[in-house]
Amino acid sequence: MPRIITGFSNPLVKRIKSLRDKKHRRAEGQFLAEGLRILTEAQEAGHLPRIVISTSEGARHPLAMALIAATEAAGGEAVETDRDILSKLSGKDNPQTVLGVFDEFDTRLEAIDRTESGIWIVAQSLRDPGNLGTILRTGDAIGAGGVILLDDCVDPFSVEAVRASMGALFTQRIARARWEAFLPWLRSGPGQLVGTSLNTDHDYQAVRYAAPTFILSGNESQGLPPDYEAACDLTVKIPMLGKADSLNVAVATAVMAYEVLNQRRR
Amino acid sequence: MPRIITGFSNPLVKRIKSLRDKKHRRAEGQFLAEGLRILTEAQEAGHLPRIVISTSEGARHPLAMALIAATEAAGGEAVETDRDILSKLSGKDNPQTVLGVFDEFDTRLEAIDRTESGIWIVAQSLRDPGNLGTILRTGDAIGAGGVILLDDCVDPFSVEAVRASMGALFTQRIARARWEAFLPWLRSGPGQLVGTSLNTDHDYQAVRYAAPTFILSGNESQGLPPDYEAACDLTVKIPMLGKADSLNVAVATAVMAYEVLNQRRR
Repeated sequence: MPRIITGFSNPLVKRIKSLRDKKHRRAEGQFLAEGLRILTEAQEAGHLPRIVISTSEGARHPLAMALIAATEAAGGEAVETDRDILSKLSGKDNPQTVLGVFDEFDTRLEAIDRTESGIWIVAQSLRDPGNLGTILRTGDAIGAGGVILLDDCVDPFSVEAVRASMGALFTQRIARARWEAFLPWLRSGPGQLVGTSLNTDHDYQAVRYAAPTFILSGNESQGLPPDYEAACDLTVKIPMLGKADSLNVAVATAVMAYEVLNQRRR
Repeated sequence: MPRIITGFSNPLVKRIKSLRDKKHRRAEGQFLAEGLRILTEAQEAGHLPRIVISTSEGARHPLAMALIAATEAAGGEAVETDRDILSKLSGKDNPQTVLGVFDEFDTRLEAIDRTESGIWIVAQSLRDPGNLGTILRTGDAIGAGGVILLDDCVDPFSVEAVRASMGALFTQRIARARWEAFLPWLRSGPGQLVGTSLNTDHDYQAVRYAAPTFILSGNESQGLPPDYEAACDLTVKIPMLGKADSLNVAVATAVMAYEVLNQRRR
C-alpha cells in the first residue's frame, strides 16, 4: 500500500527535492528520474527505484501499477502525493505524474567489460547535461556498450542528463575516470582509440575501424587536448563544408558512431 | 563614437532586454545575438547589427573594433556599457562582452532559391531551441541551403536558438511555412522529399538521394504526422539496435544529412 504524503514540509519530500543538487546526490548516492516512459525503460533494463512517487491518477496507469508492485516486491517504497508537490519536486508547472528515486550505479572503469560491445563512446570534459543525455541515447541506438566520461564531465545522474537520455542511462554502461587512469586501462586489453579532430587529413569514411572501437570526443568549446589526440590510435575528421569549424559534440559523436556501425553492417 | 550607457533604467537597455521575449521580438522585428564569435560570423556572412553593445574592454578586441566600425559605417549604433548591465541583458553572471541587435530576416518560403544547394533541411513542429540551433549548425557544416520550419516551431530568433547555432543562423537560409503552403511550393519545382520514419523498411543507406533533397524531420515527441509521411517521395529509417525507438531529432537529422552528403562525395 502506498504511503500518502500531502505536506511539502514532509522530510521525504525535502530529501527527494534535494536530489536535484549534485552535492546531495553525492551525499545520498541516489538520483531522480522523471516520467513513466523512462521509469518503464529502467524497469525493463533491470533497474527498480528505491522509491516511486506518483499522483493517485498516475498510479492507476497499468505500467505504473506494474512498476509500483515490482518496487514494493523488491523492498522499495511507493508514495502517493498531489500534483502540487510533484510540481515542486520536478520544478515544472506541468510535472510528470510518476517519479523514481534510484541508487547511483557503480561507475568505476573496472566495472566495464569491454567485450560486451564492439563500440564504446568516450567523452572528455563534457559540460552540457543535454549533450550527455543525447550521447547516451545515441549509444543505446547504435548498440554501444556504454559511455566513459573522462576528467571533469557533467554528472550523468543530473535530472537534465537523465531526461535527455530518454532512459538510455539505464541501458548503457557508464564509467567515470581521469585520463591518467583511462589510458592504462584501455591499453590493458584490445581497443582502437579514435579521436575526432580538426587537425588531421584522415576522412572519417576512409578508415576501417577495428572492434572494440573507442570513439573519443572532446569538450564542447575546447575539443580534445593535443596530448590526448597524440595518444589516439587514429584521429579522423568529419567533412565540414560551411563557415563553422565544428559540429555540436553530440552530433559529431553520432555521425562517427553511425559510420562505425554502418561499416559493421556491410 | 560609442554612446555610453550606465543606468539600467535607460530605455535602450530596457528595449534590448525585452528582445529576450518572443512577443517583443515580433513587435520590434529585431533579435539579440551574443558573443564576439557569433557576431563576427554574422559580419562575415554580410549581417551587421543595428546596435552593437559592449563593455569598454570588449570594444578593444580587434574583431570588436572592426565590427563596431562597420556597424557605424552602415548607419548602426555603438553603445558602451558596464558588465552589470550586460549581465542583466544576457541573464548570465558571466556575460559575453559583446552583444548585437539585428533585424529579423525575411523568412517567407518565396525568398528561398532551392537551386542554391542540393540539400535542404525541413523541420516540423520543432520545439526545443537547442535542437533548432544544433540543426542550423549541422546545416552549415554539410553545406545545406537552409532550414525550412513547418507549422508551430520554436522561434529561430530566440536567444537560445541563436546561441546553439554558433552563428549558423546567419549563414543558413531560414523559412517558416505551414505544411499546406510548403507542399505546393515544393511541388512547384524539383525536389525529393525524404521523411525519417519508424514506419518503413527502407534503410537510409540503401537509397540513392536525388538533388535537391529535402530532409524532413518531425516533432521531438510525436515524430511526423502520418499524412506528412504519406506525402513524402520516400521514407527511410536509421537503424536502431537498442531499447529506445528514436534518436534525438538533431542527431537523426545530422545522421541523415551526412548520408546524403557522403553519397555526393563519392
